[in-house]
Amino acid sequence: MTAFEKALDFFRAPNNRLFLIATHVTPEGDALGSSIALAYALRQLGKNAMVYDRDGVPDYCKFLPGAGEVKKTLPQDYSEAVLVLVDCGHPDRAGLEGKSFHKTVVIDHHETDLFYGDVNWTEPDASAAGMLVFRLIKALGVALTKEIAVNLYTAIMTDTGSFRYQNTTPEALGMASELVHAGAEPAAIADHIYNSWTAARFRLLCMALGTFQMKDGVAMMHISKDMFRSTGTGIEDAENFTAYPRMLKDVEVSALLLELEDSIKVSLRSKGDTDVRQIAARLGGGGHKRAAGCKLKMSLNEARDVILKEILATR
Amino acid sequence: MTAFEKALDFFRAPNNRLFLIATHVTPEGDALGSSIALAYALRQLGKNAMVYDRDGVPDYCKFLPGAGEVKKTLPQDYSEAVLVLVDCGHPDRAGLEGKSFHKTVVIDHHETDLFYGDVNWTEPDASAAGMLVFRLIKALGVALTKEIAVNLYTAIMTDTGSFRYQNTTPEALGMASELVHAGAEPAAIADHIYNSWTAARFRLLCMALGTFQMKDGVAMMHISKDMFRSTGTGIEDAENFTAYPRMLKDVEVSALLLELEDSIKVSLRSKGDTDVRQIAARLGGGGHKRAAGCKLKMSLNEARDVILKEILATR
Repeated sequence: MTAFEKALDFFRAPNNRLFLIATHVTPEGDALGSSIALAYALRQLGKNAMVYDRDGVPDYCKFLPGAGEVKKTLPQDYSEAVLVLVDCGHPDRAGLEGKSFHKTVVIDHHETDLFYGDVNWTEPDASAAGMLVFRLIKALGVALTKEIAVNLYTAIMTDTGSFRYQNTTPEALGMASELVHAGAEPAAIADHIYNSWTAARFRLLCMALGTFQMKDGVAMMHISKDMFRSTGTGIEDAENFTAYPRMLKDVEVSALLLELEDSIKVSLRSKGDTDVRQIAARLGGGGHKRAAGCKLKMSLNEARDVILKEILATR
Repeated sequence: MTAFEKALDFFRAPNNRLFLIATHVTPEGDALGSSIALAYALRQLGKNAMVYDRDGVPDYCKFLPGAGEVKKTLPQDYSEAVLVLVDCGHPDRAGLEGKSFHKTVVIDHHETDLFYGDVNWTEPDASAAGMLVFRLIKALGVALTKEIAVNLYTAIMTDTGSFRYQNTTPEALGMASELVHAGAEPAAIADHIYNSWTAARFRLLCMALGTFQMKDGVAMMHISKDMFRSTGTGIEDAENFTAYPRMLKDVEVSALLLELEDSIKVSLRSKGDTDVRQIAARLGGGGHKRAAGCKLKMSLNEARDVILKEILATR
């Protein structure tokens, strides 16, 4: 019996308990879309389901049908509930450390060697948790309502980078096709996810791009404390700014330096063969070959010099 | 008999003439991808096919299989050839004014009331010309080779804005799914199309964003002659810069002003209900409700004032 079949059996079996669907902290489109879609599906099967996220729904995901019903607090009798972890492999990732539940089911697509839970259905090859929920919904014979379609389309679109990442498989695109047929509107969803920047965040981007420098395939950008202060933004607003130097044909490595209160946070990205994990590791950080980072206890100017020197020494 | 059936019959019939496939001037991914894919398909049917474009292949499209065989000059005996216009409805759009051919077939998805050609297959509902070529190829029984798949995927991805525009239909996504299955690599293609900026163009963007100002839902940006000069860029490098203010949640209308030698080129974009065509029309320009433009004979500063005043007066 495969893990998928075990999960199917579990959801098919009569069960009057609460299905407490929880996803990881600081959730994004895939975490929320797949969790909410699963709640709709289980309710169609007559089950009692709710979605929990410790951090709640970020503004740009509030358009998701059902987003208003996502709870930031656990119900009193949570220990009697079935916990369904979606898009995360362990209760700790959902901020549920030390809590116990009647049973736990895991539906995840992150690489793991934990295999936590009474039923653990993990498929690292799936591009998004939303794809697993899609498969489940189909196999359970649940109707693909517009509410479910919008949630699952958002999930798959988010985790494939609007169908631009390596994980954009025929299955991901085929499901997207079916979800649009079922009522998901790609342009409206993309506007919510990608075109909902605050003016403050956009000003921060403009300032950061103003510091852009490039030499020998190395792109450098930074954000000073002053820039954060004058725009009224924080470190979370700079998320994904590393995508901009990536647009350049001749950039091999890019570095974004953020000046925090007491250190410099460095994000390194590689488009080519340079292993930025090595660079980060030498400076006390870590990550992957193409995306890594570290923190440096020095001034912004010193950090720029150190980083540039380390990158040039590695290539 | 539908136009599609007429086109099918035409391509099925034995024909030893040259099939001269031509697309519009300043071609992009859909124009080139659909034209080249059609050439591969016709050759599979034993026909003699070539692709012509007056302006040739822009750098970011040179990765397309077959791009190297696109000609910028007509063969001597062109008047004996069958002209197949792809992604354009009239020879003028392809820079073929005043030329005559044995027969002309049009395969296009732009709205028209001309219906030029011996066979005219125009489907304004299709998201991309590449979708029409895909349908044709399927109906003709041509094998979906990797070469064809890469070209058609590029075509559909380009014209749907990486599956973010209103025209992202279930059919477009379904075809994309099949094309990836046939060997198209979404991430590699997206890198070629979206992440191949020159450093000069990127510097121009940084400078343009440095001029960003927003008030009451109106975003303004400009590029001065000096900025073009100091980055060594031209007006074509500023293409699609209007996409950036669109990222803002609260932007209703955005204006990009380019200072040319003797005038200011204004691009207006609307995200909401404001009809920018009206504004452009009052200033001697034109366009659509959500994308319009005009040229003003005045200084950059004067133009900024005029545009802002007109936008505020319209809302």
